[in-house]
Amino acid sequence: MRNKVINPQEKVNQISEVWTPKIIEQLNDYHIKVAKFEGDFVWHKHDHTDELFMVIEGSMVIHFRDKSVSLKPGELYVVPRGVEHKPSADETCKVLLIEPAGTVNTGHVDSDLKASNKDWI
Amino acid sequence: MRNKVINPQEKVNQISEVWTPKIIEQLNDYHIKVAKFEGDFVWHKHDHTDELFMVIEGSMVIHFRDKSVSLKPGELYVVPRGVEHKPSADETCKVLLIEPAGTVNTGHVDSDLKASNKDWI
Repeated sequence: MRNKVINPQEKVNQISEVWTPKIIEQLNDYHIKVAKFEGDFVWHKHDHTDELFMVIEGSMVIHFRDKSVSLKPGELYVVPRGVEHKPSADETCKVLLIEPAGTVNTGHVDSDLKASNKDWI
Repeated sequence: MRNKVINPQEKVNQISEVWTPKIIEQLNDYHIKVAKFEGDFVWHKHDHTDELFMVIEGSMVIHFRDKSVSLKPGELYVVPRGVEHKPSADETCKVLLIEPAGTVNTGHVDSDLKASNKDWI
């Protein structure tokens, strides 16, 4: 915990890569993260946790095997545990994520897009 | 879990009272809530959980016994467990809160401002 005011938009603007979530704050054993999304991520799931996505700037789509949902700035979506999903964004989208500390971005999948789950910004 | 896109700002706009958090989504055993703040809340603490505040619209202050912090739209602050705090807002402030399901808004204090911790909107 930082005991200070955090501006997620300022934090995400400091990130240059895409698909590399950075931790900005901790809430009990949960991490608040920010990331830039661009292009297609990999299909994956998290067997033991739900995952919250909230758009800071831009727009994104979360694909599911049976549907897809679009998120605009300020909107949020909770992906249920165990459900395969593939985030994507036509143009750079700045996203806030909330999930238990230690959650791996690529879930059950081994992928080049697997990022550290320990980096703060 | 709702399996649909949630717009916190639209949800909070549906609330008429102040200091009455309403649940808009669930993330594992955490609730995502929205509320309108106006005036002074009561000094209180939550002995067993941190509490996240994020401003949707307006501005608010979180008073602590030894300092205070001001939050503008898009900014967030995590109040550590066990730390006495008093949220306040000169004018109506629309706020997103995240905390474990069942958390009571007034914490350890018995107050007329105690609200239901089970109402969804």
